[in-house]
Amino acid sequence: MQTHINQTEQNSSEKQPLRPLIGITMGDPAGIGPEVIVDALSSDSIHYICRAVVFGDFEIMKMAVKLKNSNLKVCEIDGDYDGNFSEFNFCANTIYVLNLSSLEAKYIEAKNISATTGLSVINYINRAVDFALNKKISAMVTAPITKTALKMAGSQFHGHTELIAHRTGTKDYAMMLAGDRLKVVLVTIHIALSEVPKSLTVDNIVRTIKIAGLSLKRNFAIKEPRIAVAGLNPHSGEDGMFGDEEIKIITPAVEMAKELLANSGSFQIDGPFPPDTIFYNAANGNYDCVICMYHDQGLIPFKLLHFSDGVNTTLGLPIIRTSVDHGTAYNIAWKNRADHTSLFQAIKMAVVQADSLQNSLTV
Amino acid sequence: MQTHINQTEQNSSEKQPLRPLIGITMGDPAGIGPEVIVDALSSDSIHYICRAVVFGDFEIMKMAVKLKNSNLKVCEIDGDYDGNFSEFNFCANTIYVLNLSSLEAKYIEAKNISATTGLSVINYINRAVDFALNKKISAMVTAPITKTALKMAGSQFHGHTELIAHRTGTKDYAMMLAGDRLKVVLVTIHIALSEVPKSLTVDNIVRTIKIAGLSLKRNFAIKEPRIAVAGLNPHSGEDGMFGDEEIKIITPAVEMAKELLANSGSFQIDGPFPPDTIFYNAANGNYDCVICMYHDQGLIPFKLLHFSDGVNTTLGLPIIRTSVDHGTAYNIAWKNRADHTSLFQAIKMAVVQADSLQNSLTV
Repeated sequence: MQTHINQTEQNSSEKQPLRPLIGITMGDPAGIGPEVIVDALSSDSIHYICRAVVFGDFEIMKMAVKLKNSNLKVCEIDGDYDGNFSEFNFCANTIYVLNLSSLEAKYIEAKNISATTGLSVINYINRAVDFALNKKISAMVTAPITKTALKMAGSQFHGHTELIAHRTGTKDYAMMLAGDRLKVVLVTIHIALSEVPKSLTVDNIVRTIKIAGLSLKRNFAIKEPRIAVAGLNPHSGEDGMFGDEEIKIITPAVEMAKELLANSGSFQIDGPFPPDTIFYNAANGNYDCVICMYHDQGLIPFKLLHFSDGVNTTLGLPIIRTSVDHGTAYNIAWKNRADHTSLFQAIKMAVVQADSLQNSLTV
Repeated sequence: MQTHINQTEQNSSEKQPLRPLIGITMGDPAGIGPEVIVDALSSDSIHYICRAVVFGDFEIMKMAVKLKNSNLKVCEIDGDYDGNFSEFNFCANTIYVLNLSSLEAKYIEAKNISATTGLSVINYINRAVDFALNKKISAMVTAPITKTALKMAGSQFHGHTELIAHRTGTKDYAMMLAGDRLKVVLVTIHIALSEVPKSLTVDNIVRTIKIAGLSLKRNFAIKEPRIAVAGLNPHSGEDGMFGDEEIKIITPAVEMAKELLANSGSFQIDGPFPPDTIFYNAANGNYDCVICMYHDQGLIPFKLLHFSDGVNTTLGLPIIRTSVDHGTAYNIAWKNRADHTSLFQAIKMAVVQADSLQNSLTV
């Protein structure tokens, strides 16, 4: 295992590409973000596959290193820096922090969440997006934030996804939850179950299938993506007996998506399938992802298989963005009890996507 | 392993209770019922825990034995028999068939499904219910049928559950899908997803919790049943942000169910929980069952964990009824390809419930 990579040595071998540079946003200082970042960056295997820069707060990250009783050093990069980080060695024993705030220590307590917190976390995210858009980092990975802090800072956005979509000028994007066994992409997300049937349209299903298909090809290097589309009703409506959305909306959407994607390479798009069996089939290797009509249709099977190691990734953006699939967990934050598996997997998946995209551009 | 139990020998030991007598309805002759019955009754372990009588067609069962190339003998019991089967030895090398029809061989083909098929399968079910109500069998286990055959026979019922509820004069019953890791009980079943929110009432949720709680105690010998109630909306509505059914209906139902069951012993009833994590918690041993608001909320996680070995059981009946959780599978029937795991588990679960009920009556 490589524990210290000397940039000069690495550059001397022309065939050895640089490990992708991953920007990790620190997230809410009162959440578990800072400590899981220290845990993830303590792993040699992460340094072996990427170089990492934390977009956050230097002093807070030092506190997290102290909490974890870690030997890692913390290297401050000035918040005004806008280079491509080529002058840094990216030693495995160091956490590099682009220092974007000077939060007082009190902000690591959930009771002190305020506009200050909100403005800081928004700044981490916006700066990481800008670096990604300018190709100065290969991908961004986000640690958790809360809507409350965003709201206090006067933000109009519900969370990361909407904020990043806005900053990158993206209209058509989709949320994927991804793990080794199952990947799900959602057509509708945070709406009441009673709103789901009337929110489904041929158009938004086609759009979701298209974004998922193209992303599986480009970001996940799957040559012929196999996409299963779930129905909405029990047994997929059983020929209209329990609901007709499959007949009127989902089946036409599947057909239209097939036509639309026909010019973009090979795709296998099947469905609508009875929701109660398609996840078993997909998890057993028959499909690369399942398009889900509503939040819990996808999240229930996903969390059952990937409770700790699931990754949230936004598809359709001009940049790569992965995220932990858990929240700030204020109740266990700064107690040395948080599990960093999801962040670890999110970083790994950012690297996979960065490599895949790089390859697809150079082929 | 005991392969042949002599009734006289067994009776000579007063402390050894008789193995419970289980009635297995043959189901649709053109489905996989007959052959999975032969497979399940070929297992010594089934004979070790119970005595089995098939409520079906003697000639069709002989054909299934031939198909399986089995050494089992088939013993015909006259269709008019209404005793308690005490005169039969119940050898492990014999399938005992209460012969309730004389179907021609052509009826094992799906294309010949007719009123004749429908009337026969209804008769198997009704007779098994009557034997169970009269305590001549301890439980009934049902092999699959189709709505089509029932309809052709002029039946007003959609399936087993409704038919058996009617025959036993039961108004309040609930469907449970049960496996070793997860048990789910459904508040609503075969209705369109768009009908679900308006179909939920405090009353039907309380009723379902109550039936589940009492059944876990009596039929599954769980002293203090731990019941989790799922929410309806993503994140359980997040304080009304995405739907208010949790606030207006489910939370009051949980409170009322606690009060109602307070006089029937100890119960732990918690919820409503965010649907995307409660199944992981339950499957990891924190709850004995999850009350689900709609079909796929329960069936998606259940089938993911128990695709082949799931059992369907009707709670709230005055008799014990378990069932396979698959359909007739006409496409693979009579081809020696069917998997008998679900029937095997359904018989085992019928025995567990019969034993539990027997113990609760004799304590």
